Amino acid sequence: MTRRIHVIGIGAGDPDYVTVQAVDALNDVDVFFASDKGSNKGGVEDDLVLFRRDICQRFIREPGYRFVELPDPLRASTGDYRQRVADWHEARADLWAQALLDELADDGVGAFLAWGDPSLYDSTLRILDRVAQRLDVTYDVIPGITAIQALTARHRIPLNDVGEPVLITTGRRLREVGLSGAAVVMLDGDCAFLGCPPETRIWWGAYLGTADEILVDGTVGEMGERIATVRADARERHGWIMDTYLLRP
Amino acid sequence: MTRRIHVIGIGAGDPDYVTVQAVDALNDVDVFFASDKGSNKGGVEDDLVLFRRDICQRFIREPGYRFVELPDPLRASTGDYRQRVADWHEARADLWAQALLDELADDGVGAFLAWGDPSLYDSTLRILDRVAQRLDVTYDVIPGITAIQALTARHRIPLNDVGEPVLITTGRRLREVGLSGAAVVMLDGDCAFLGCPPETRIWWGAYLGTADEILVDGTVGEMGERIATVRADARERHGWIMDTYLLRP
Repeated sequence: MTRRIHVIGIGAGDPDYVTVQAVDALNDVDVFFASDKGSNKGGVEDDLVLFRRDICQRFIREPGYRFVELPDPLRASTGDYRQRVADWHEARADLWAQALLDELADDGVGAFLAWGDPSLYDSTLRILDRVAQRLDVTYDVIPGITAIQALTARHRIPLNDVGEPVLITTGRRLREVGLSGAAVVMLDGDCAFLGCPPETRIWWGAYLGTADEILVDGTVGEMGERIATVRADARERHGWIMDTYLLRP
Repeated sequence: MTRRIHVIGIGAGDPDYVTVQAVDALNDVDVFFASDKGSNKGGVEDDLVLFRRDICQRFIREPGYRFVELPDPLRASTGDYRQRVADWHEARADLWAQALLDELADDGVGAFLAWGDPSLYDSTLRILDRVAQRLDVTYDVIPGITAIQALTARHRIPLNDVGEPVLITTGRRLREVGLSGAAVVMLDGDCAFLGCPPETRIWWGAYLGTADEILVDGTVGEMGERIATVRADARERHGWIMDTYLLRP
């Protein structure tokens, strides 16, 4: 009698990015736990909640599942960044552990749906690792299509040059250390690519895999400002934006 | 009347890693083109061919498709590496273009099935880009679960540290430049991790997502030699191995 949890990657954008394995896992779930607020993936709660419900409606054959919204602990705004994140993970783990006890039968199956893939810029696994120290629960991970793969698929480009490495990084990091090879940038709210040399090649995409998808490619010198404008306009129109891009020096 | 091609990522290991989008694309195909020899993914032709056929049998509802094996041009063994690869891509593009003309109706749909994701250490997109300069053909890309995602899912670990970058690289590169941050290593036939400091953390996996899966994690100092032994044994037993690993300094 052990509570089980699936951490399911639901892909980035197109509902059809879910895998057969994810569909099977979705159909195994009694309770979907959701906890978006304060996620590091942007302030897009409403649309993400809708996307999740759409995924469930589309792929679950016998709907007997429930959604449980998890309260979100306050996040300290001062102090060491890593410590603050660790404290916040601890606080979340307390809340999640209690929710699993309250909402899930002893032999019940819960799930967390992760945008893209659970391994990439997502805190679910870090928190569940702490939850598993608090109560008897097992969990597995179902991989999903990341925004990086959606980006390269929609631009129809390879991620790496032949035999070459590629860095997955953030806008903040790009600003701090600059570009020293191919890099795909996530979590960039400030168009950090504008700080790259003008001859840098960029493949940019927003709302990838959805009807609102926008793709732009070129050099930073030719297209950088245009991407910044398109991005600002789209963000205003939608109220949020999710975008990512690949750079090559 | 244009020939269309799907480049379909079939995931790395577990047939259930295919996406709903990939299943739809599979069901749209008249001719599957295969060209494994000389692929940079290891000498695993027979098992990859079987895996492909298994995927098609499992997910195609009305089997009317054909398989066409593409001949593989000889690859020069001397001269500049990049030039040799470019020459080989050109030679392949000639052969592929002819095969599309010969084997596909004017309005036919062909496909290439890419192990993992078509964007990562795969030459299909580079060659198709050249094919499209030779004849009237359009192509799209269906993303798939990579070995990187299979690795992190099976180890149930995040790929990146909180807000930190991660490098996707090769064994050759790791030997040349060493480890300077989290890195996931692909295409390593020589256990390049053994050259890392003993305190380096490693999460290693082979035959990920299959019944033969092997997972090992620990530090390079504690587990490095053991991984090398396990790897050599498994390779001898199976005749081939596909493995990948994540390192953290």
